[in-house]
Amino acid sequence: MRVLGVDPGLTRCGLAIVDEAPGRKVILKSVMVFRTPATDALADRLLQLDNALKEIIKEYKPDVVAVEQVFSQHNLKSVMGTAQAAGLAMVNGARSGCQVFTYTPTQVKASVTGSGKADKRQIGRMIAKICGLSSPPEPADASDAVALAICHLWRGGADEKIRKRAVS
Amino acid sequence: MRVLGVDPGLTRCGLAIVDEAPGRKVILKSVMVFRTPATDALADRLLQLDNALKEIIKEYKPDVVAVEQVFSQHNLKSVMGTAQAAGLAMVNGARSGCQVFTYTPTQVKASVTGSGKADKRQIGRMIAKICGLSSPPEPADASDAVALAICHLWRGGADEKIRKRAVS
Repeated sequence: MRVLGVDPGLTRCGLAIVDEAPGRKVILKSVMVFRTPATDALADRLLQLDNALKEIIKEYKPDVVAVEQVFSQHNLKSVMGTAQAAGLAMVNGARSGCQVFTYTPTQVKASVTGSGKADKRQIGRMIAKICGLSSPPEPADASDAVALAICHLWRGGADEKIRKRAVS
Repeated sequence: MRVLGVDPGLTRCGLAIVDEAPGRKVILKSVMVFRTPATDALADRLLQLDNALKEIIKEYKPDVVAVEQVFSQHNLKSVMGTAQAAGLAMVNGARSGCQVFTYTPTQVKASVTGSGKADKRQIGRMIAKICGLSSPPEPADASDAVALAICHLWRGGADEKIRKRAVS
């Protein structure tokens, strides 16, 4: 299974392609942070991000798009752009036949570090460890996108096992 | 000039096509409210709205998309969906080569009724009067979408005049 993890944002949008490997291992295929200039018109910024999402989905053909759930309580100033970026990730996933999942920051942190209260540095270190990198993907949005994809693979795997056990 | 007015929302999205006519007159070509079921997954609802936007832009080929500006202060519960719906309207407009504008509710109300504090009923009545309808388009989201398009035509016209005067 291949997952596109998206840490949504207009100024910086983290995008990571992660493949499942046997034994809770993962293979990081690609990670990037897509940026749009704050000086551009909002519609143009959204279009640039939409193009980037279309491109990465076309190139890597993920099975799943895992997007961080945006809360209106957080960071009121940038929440609209973040919500719109998340919306574009979801639409592009759905249009390409991917399954689309959202995860809360707490779910992502808990999956990757074992603690829902982990800080950015902790997440970065764990991502580096899990993916066999010498240092965490930078900036934090890149690590967060990888964490989202891993969160889906690990939680999704667990859910799947529970379902199978319940059925058999 | 042809304007697509969008009163963004996931549960109800007002969409109106309005043409400019001489003498501050307008011709209402089409108005609808597009709905998505609250029981559907968010990604599916966004995709349904995205499809509806693509369809109306393809059919009516507007020159401008005028979208209500979403504020994070208002209606915290539904603001994320509203912001995402607005984002889709902007992206589809930009992708089709339309000019994209946003207007605040106060600007829209002031343009159409002369008062930035007008209520829904007042807006509906003015829309009916301006468009020569026997009754306001229902529900209020439909009237609001028409009001957005008219706001652009009337404000845009004024801005244009000011620019021309300044240049000449």
